[in-house]
Amino acid sequence: MPAELLPEKCGVFGIFGVKNAAELTYLGLYALQHRGQESAGIVSNFNGKLHIRKGMGQVNDVFSKDVLAELPGHFAIGHNRYSTTGANSVTNIQPFLFHYKGRSIAVGHNGNLTNTLSLRKKLEDAGAIFQSTTDTELILHLVAHSKKNDPVEKIIDALKQCEGAYSLTFVTNEGIVAARDPKGFRPMALGKLAGAYVVASETCAFDIIGAQYLREVEPGEVLVIDEKGLRSHYPFERQEHAFCIFEFIYFARPDSMIYGENVDKVRRRLGRQLAIERPVNADIVIAVPDSSNTAALGFSEQSGIQLEIGFIRNHYVGRTFIHPEQAIRDLDVRIKFNPVKGVLKEKRVAIVDDSIVRGTTSKKLVGMVREAGAKEVHFRVSAPPIISPCFYGIDMPTREELIASSRTVEDIRKYLGVDSLGYLSIEGMLSMPSLPKGNFCVACFAGKYPTKIEHHNGKDILEKKDRRPAEIWP
Amino acid sequence: MPAELLPEKCGVFGIFGVKNAAELTYLGLYALQHRGQESAGIVSNFNGKLHIRKGMGQVNDVFSKDVLAELPGHFAIGHNRYSTTGANSVTNIQPFLFHYKGRSIAVGHNGNLTNTLSLRKKLEDAGAIFQSTTDTELILHLVAHSKKNDPVEKIIDALKQCEGAYSLTFVTNEGIVAARDPKGFRPMALGKLAGAYVVASETCAFDIIGAQYLREVEPGEVLVIDEKGLRSHYPFERQEHAFCIFEFIYFARPDSMIYGENVDKVRRRLGRQLAIERPVNADIVIAVPDSSNTAALGFSEQSGIQLEIGFIRNHYVGRTFIHPEQAIRDLDVRIKFNPVKGVLKEKRVAIVDDSIVRGTTSKKLVGMVREAGAKEVHFRVSAPPIISPCFYGIDMPTREELIASSRTVEDIRKYLGVDSLGYLSIEGMLSMPSLPKGNFCVACFAGKYPTKIEHHNGKDILEKKDRRPAEIWP
Amino acid sequence: MPAELLPEKCGVFGIFGVKNAAELTYLGLYALQHRGQESAGIVSNFNGKLHIRKGMGQVNDVFSKDVLAELPGHFAIGHNRYSTTGANSVTNIQPFLFHYKGRSIAVGHNGNLTNTLSLRKKLEDAGAIFQSTTDTELILHLVAHSKKNDPVEKIIDALKQCEGAYSLTFVTNEGIVAARDPKGFRPMALGKLAGAYVVASETCAFDIIGAQYLREVEPGEVLVIDEKGLRSHYPFERQEHAFCIFEFIYFARPDSMIYGENVDKVRRRLGRQLAIERPVNADIVIAVPDSSNTAALGFSEQSGIQLEIGFIRNHYVGRTFIHPEQAIRDLDVRIKFNPVKGVLKEKRVAIVDDSIVRGTTSKKLVGMVREAGAKEVHFRVSAPPIISPCFYGIDMPTREELIASSRTVEDIRKYLGVDSLGYLSIEGMLSMPSLPKGNFCVACFAGKYPTKIEHHNGKDILEKKDRRPAEIWP
Amino acid sequence: MPAELLPEKCGVFGIFGVKNAAELTYLGLYALQHRGQESAGIVSNFNGKLHIRKGMGQVNDVFSKDVLAELPGHFAIGHNRYSTTGANSVTNIQPFLFHYKGRSIAVGHNGNLTNTLSLRKKLEDAGAIFQSTTDTELILHLVAHSKKNDPVEKIIDALKQCEGAYSLTFVTNEGIVAARDPKGFRPMALGKLAGAYVVASETCAFDIIGAQYLREVEPGEVLVIDEKGLRSHYPFERQEHAFCIFEFIYFARPDSMIYGENVDKVRRRLGRQLAIERPVNADIVIAVPDSSNTAALGFSEQSGIQLEIGFIRNHYVGRTFIHPEQAIRDLDVRIKFNPVKGVLKEKRVAIVDDSIVRGTTSKKLVGMVREAGAKEVHFRVSAPPIISPCFYGIDMPTREELIASSRTVEDIRKYLGVDSLGYLSIEGMLSMPSLPKGNFCVACFAGKYPTKIEHHNGKDILEKKDRRPAEIWP
Repeated sequence: MPAELLPEKCGVFGIFGVKNAAELTYLGLYALQHRGQESAGIVSNFNGKLHIRKGMGQVNDVFSKDVLAELPGHFAIGHNRYSTTGANSVTNIQPFLFHYKGRSIAVGHNGNLTNTLSLRKKLEDAGAIFQSTTDTELILHLVAHSKKNDPVEKIIDALKQCEGAYSLTFVTNEGIVAARDPKGFRPMALGKLAGAYVVASETCAFDIIGAQYLREVEPGEVLVIDEKGLRSHYPFERQEHAFCIFEFIYFARPDSMIYGENVDKVRRRLGRQLAIERPVNADIVIAVPDSSNTAALGFSEQSGIQLEIGFIRNHYVGRTFIHPEQAIRDLDVRIKFNPVKGVLKEKRVAIVDDSIVRGTTSKKLVGMVREAGAKEVHFRVSAPPIISPCFYGIDMPTREELIASSRTVEDIRKYLGVDSLGYLSIEGMLSMPSLPKGNFCVACFAGKYPTKIEHHNGKDILEKKDRRPAEIWP
Repeated sequence: MPAELLPEKCGVFGIFGVKNAAELTYLGLYALQHRGQESAGIVSNFNGKLHIRKGMGQVNDVFSKDVLAELPGHFAIGHNRYSTTGANSVTNIQPFLFHYKGRSIAVGHNGNLTNTLSLRKKLEDAGAIFQSTTDTELILHLVAHSKKNDPVEKIIDALKQCEGAYSLTFVTNEGIVAARDPKGFRPMALGKLAGAYVVASETCAFDIIGAQYLREVEPGEVLVIDEKGLRSHYPFERQEHAFCIFEFIYFARPDSMIYGENVDKVRRRLGRQLAIERPVNADIVIAVPDSSNTAALGFSEQSGIQLEIGFIRNHYVGRTFIHPEQAIRDLDVRIKFNPVKGVLKEKRVAIVDDSIVRGTTSKKLVGMVREAGAKEVHFRVSAPPIISPCFYGIDMPTREELIASSRTVEDIRKYLGVDSLGYLSIEGMLSMPSLPKGNFCVACFAGKYPTKIEHHNGKDILEKKDRRPAEIWP
Repeated sequence: MPAELLPEKCGVFGIFGVKNAAELTYLGLYALQHRGQESAGIVSNFNGKLHIRKGMGQVNDVFSKDVLAELPGHFAIGHNRYSTTGANSVTNIQPFLFHYKGRSIAVGHNGNLTNTLSLRKKLEDAGAIFQSTTDTELILHLVAHSKKNDPVEKIIDALKQCEGAYSLTFVTNEGIVAARDPKGFRPMALGKLAGAYVVASETCAFDIIGAQYLREVEPGEVLVIDEKGLRSHYPFERQEHAFCIFEFIYFARPDSMIYGENVDKVRRRLGRQLAIERPVNADIVIAVPDSSNTAALGFSEQSGIQLEIGFIRNHYVGRTFIHPEQAIRDLDVRIKFNPVKGVLKEKRVAIVDDSIVRGTTSKKLVGMVREAGAKEVHFRVSAPPIISPCFYGIDMPTREELIASSRTVEDIRKYLGVDSLGYLSIEGMLSMPSLPKGNFCVACFAGKYPTKIEHHNGKDILEKKDRRPAEIWP
Repeated sequence: MPAELLPEKCGVFGIFGVKNAAELTYLGLYALQHRGQESAGIVSNFNGKLHIRKGMGQVNDVFSKDVLAELPGHFAIGHNRYSTTGANSVTNIQPFLFHYKGRSIAVGHNGNLTNTLSLRKKLEDAGAIFQSTTDTELILHLVAHSKKNDPVEKIIDALKQCEGAYSLTFVTNEGIVAARDPKGFRPMALGKLAGAYVVASETCAFDIIGAQYLREVEPGEVLVIDEKGLRSHYPFERQEHAFCIFEFIYFARPDSMIYGENVDKVRRRLGRQLAIERPVNADIVIAVPDSSNTAALGFSEQSGIQLEIGFIRNHYVGRTFIHPEQAIRDLDVRIKFNPVKGVLKEKRVAIVDDSIVRGTTSKKLVGMVREAGAKEVHFRVSAPPIISPCFYGIDMPTREELIASSRTVEDIRKYLGVDSLGYLSIEGMLSMPSLPKGNFCVACFAGKYPTKIEHHNGKDILEKKDRRPAEIWP
């Protein structure tokens, strides 16, 4: 449920070998806008020197024709950021650009490191000081502290010390480097545009610029693109993969390829499997647009129940909103979604959604469907119950706030006020991609984490993640 | 096809009898945002005096909490405007507020008068001077020039001189007045919220504030809402109705009721009828989101061909855009729509759209579907060919620019590059609403206009409408 | 005292015969910025059609290079407006552009009509309706209502019906027209730039574009500038002049010429005369920068008392300001002026200011000078006591709010907390310009008005002027 | 000449012990706005945690009531920055806030270190990486790298490694620290407001909040203000002072105290001394407002030549400006200054200015005075010729660009086109403050620097300072 999830889902992009790399990076970030709307930034390399422009807001807010003109050069990286705090976190806007020993390096990060506490301590003991609250800054410190000489060697040296999730694009004085953690938590793909190479979180960023998908940047791969061409390093020991299954469920755009698979196909199959596991006696199936459209389509196909458009989504949502004197029930949800009464009236309605996080939005949607005259309301979720927070780049609520962490399905059914509630099983979910099921991280559904989580073991893991605004420092 | 139509579709709203009328008007305008994004305005009445705030941009750009606080009072009207020119038409922002003989009146207009030339001449001869290029200003002049004493009588007197399309909300020193032309070209509905009355272009504006739909404001009705309650006048001779069928085809939100019917239902039946009239041998049916989603659903239902999500729409579209040095084919369409390759590949695809205007966007979409690997591409349009411009409030291209005005269906098929092309018939279209078919205006499809069009008869009707920017005056 | 006076002082500009008239108009308005900072607008004529751009804010806020590029043509007029209300009066921004009988006309106005009530009634009886609260709109109505055929004749016909103060620039389909009321309340000058003619409220607008001052636009002159050249009409009966003496005292820039005289020279002589009439035993003379700099210089010259810089003015003043939790005395004045302690300490200080309106700011300045250690504080005003409001274009407080309307000089002295207080006499003031003293309006000092003031006679004149915000209508 | 000097003059402020420290910091920065308009920032301490808000623009652009509300706490520091580049240097906005070993520290800097190259190398060798191009960041690195335990000890340890000019305010988790380099290049004063202590670059920041001046923060003093009160450390060996004399000549506001002296008094004596050293046969003396007003006053007093207001300065100058098609001579200077013709005509005019840097603006001003009809134009400069760039916080042009570096006074006279030209002597200048003359830095006038300038010795010192935009990195 997009209204409840607070994912720290970011988008990364990099391109090498075109006339004006920043312009294509801008278009790539624009296609990746759904992965982060808080801030955007681009670093280009012109004659070996790095140029940076970044700011708060969406890609179109930050970059005008004039600003792009200040980013010359034939290679560049870009970053969209989703923030977990309301604070105006100017200091956390990516890419970060650092200078050390006569050299420069910039990085954009999608993911979350899990050994930040020990990394930070180690760096602090070595005298490092930090300007942001991000783990991304740590990575650049590790690069600079490396004893290696070659910039790529330094990056590899740094990444060897990092645990957790990262899909990174670097730009150095000589080229760009794309790196993905050995477990491959977050996606990253490689494409080609005439003589140029492109990397991006999702392939929809290739489509907008007319680039061809080549392959995934592989888990554990460090990909160097410079004047000498494309070179791959595999510096890490091979590990079990832990692809984020949530990318398939909700994050990625359905027109993208992720982990080598069409998001649309997997997402539809989740809906189909849901219909098999949790059948429903209903007259119509409706989605919560746009995120569960594809899953609902699959559910409808499998069940043979007619798919209908039950909610109209208002895409003009602004940031600030009034609270009128005349109280209006559920206004926060109502300004986004309006039920189509003619469709719902006197119908047994199956709502297919991609997740239930806190449950508050779902409850309001159910109320709107009932108010529109539905005879019965059934809720089907194309994912298993979320019982545990994510530490790999999705900023979920704390365990306490996750409705499924402490309530049974029947309790949740009562809370939502629906006639039936059904979740997809973990097994069912994992059987959907064509990849072996061992490849995926299901920590948020199963509570078992594929890596050690520092200082979050034992009781800690139940507690609220430290969500201090970026501008308030200890 | 939203990217080609340039509708002068506006949204009007009025409310009487709530604590802070401007706040609910703001929400109503927000729900009507799809009817006009160029400018927005609200006029409220506090103790008999009118307060106005208006500006360029969407509702959320123009109105903040602070601005709404400057609009006190328990009744108000609001207006969203869609502009036909790129010019920064500050002078044309509605509502218009005029002052005459110690009284004030403001109006918001959806529609287009067809006797503006003679009205303007008559008023100019009487010494009237104009600040805007709009027909809406003429209406207020007629009100002020009326010899009647009562403000409502004056409004009626003025409207009797107007021909063409109008759904109007006025606010006077005493109350609000809603009026709809005797042919009823443009929609307007009446609702109730506790003790208050509401009027709006579409019922989705009622839903957001929790108001109940009562009935249509009838064609030819002049509805007065003030301290004394609700009173209806029917000052015009009864005329044939001429409801705009295009509201069902494309304009109105599917969750709205229009002319007493659910838009969703009629729109779906258009899709069903299209499938009957123009069947197709295809593997999948896809919509051009979001506007043809409902028609495509109907087509799929009727034909039994699987509905798929073939295009992903990017809702982050900004106003300004770059043209990168590296030419990218069809970038203007590509930034809005991306095909879902996995869905389209090696499929026989039927695209259902709601209209073809110039044909240029349709051609690009077809190209994208082919590029995604479709084996065959069939195009189905849930409306008849548009052969003639609209003079009742939809700003279409000139006749020359309308691809169907001079080309056969076969010619258009070749132009689009599709394997087959099928339009809905006028008869089929008119059989869809439950209203008798004589009730609708089909001028744009049939070329016959239900009213006289001044200075547009004969050869003139083929020529480009005068689209001078509002700020350039003869 | 600039902080207290709320003058409706506007700036007007017009130019005919240069390549890009709007650019020079922009520069002219920039030089006239001191006459109004609330809004700015330009109307240019390109091939007989009028182009308008206007907006809230200073000249630099409203006009960018891009906006100026939308104002082509070789003649144009411009206007700066000072508003008397805090309201965001979009509808009152000048120039006004009106359309009538196939023709267009725009006007910018400096001044205030005094027969607006009867004009408005007459126009309303003839069916006119108004969109703004300004008298300027009335003028254009009168032009359009005129039975004359020629546009210039129409303007003359309209102006014959107007009483009060006006310096106007019109732009028509053929040229520009500059007009000044027969009493000449507000200034307007004519200049030349190569083959082009320029009119402006003050000659500082000529200096910035390198134009030469030719002469005053004479009281009662209607000056037509078009392709045929320059032509003057004198359609009004000759009347006693009533030049606003306040322009010399405070409004105009000292580097301008007004009524054919150097403002600087007259203003200095006011200071000299003040020193003669109201001598002081003081160690130093200080001004309240920047408005009384010149008068203080004259006072110092005449008295032989050393001129010192006693206050530093902060020119960065923003619009919004905080009110800190920790109360700071006189913060409103303190953010604008800071006393130079080293200069004031243990000195007998004579403050020369150009006016005392409400007296509140003066009192605070005196307090700051005392706090800085002055032994004695003497206050000298280079104008007589203001006892009556202005109805000719300066929006002063009501009579009640004018401290001198009901208090003796001794009372005011006590209120200000000064050791002595001296005003210039009316006679002394009038002897300063080289023009015969009968030429000036001294209504605000003497209470006698050179024209009839409608509905403001008798007791009315004491009451608060109707200062309703432009957006609140009766 | 303000139009030519590009000083990196910044303003620093700190306060401890008031209810809402950020609000008073805001007011202090507002009073110090003349020391830097490019960016502004505040860091407050609430319950031991640091809160930061900073942005591009003037104080009023960056801080609204809402933003100040996000800066709670009873102590805070603030910074105004003047930038030497046009680049949108988001990364260089001060204060800088860094985090190290569980602690936080922020700093604002006025001045310029002269051993940055060796410091940077030392830090880089220790693994430090940098995000900005400023020497200020180096200071925080040195603090973090210090082996000392106590934060104040760490600061002292860091400063001991720094050479050059610094007036710094730090905020730590416990309090604020103000530090001034042992030579005292840049000013800093200490004040008191009820129970609170304040430090600021100039005392005008005390006046606006009603604080009392106590004394200078002494050269070499490290002043700690926290819950335990006020404590001074003097960790450096005593050195010759090197107060920047340019603060007296041009930078500081005349109402401030600097180095314990009234700026106004010293600046006036400079004008007096100039009149003694370089007498002139002239009818009038004029200043270039506002910066040379005080010096011109002194010149007039001493010489007995009448002071006149010869230029009017337009304070509305915007950032962007057009270049009209019709070329206007000296438009860049004309938009700022307009000569008062009546004052200058047929007069022998002595212009007193505070400096000549490149000479281009002075030449244009001279031209305007001649054009206004002056019979003779004499130029007097209340400072000696600038022959060498400053490395202590004033970003002057390179030596080549300094007109006096390679031309004789006679050459400059000819270039300016004046009848006579006279500079103040170094000796004359140094005799003006009451401090012993050995206390001042006169490097820019004498070419001898009180500290070693790294990598600027020999020929280097003549070369252009590295002025790369902050966002372009090697």
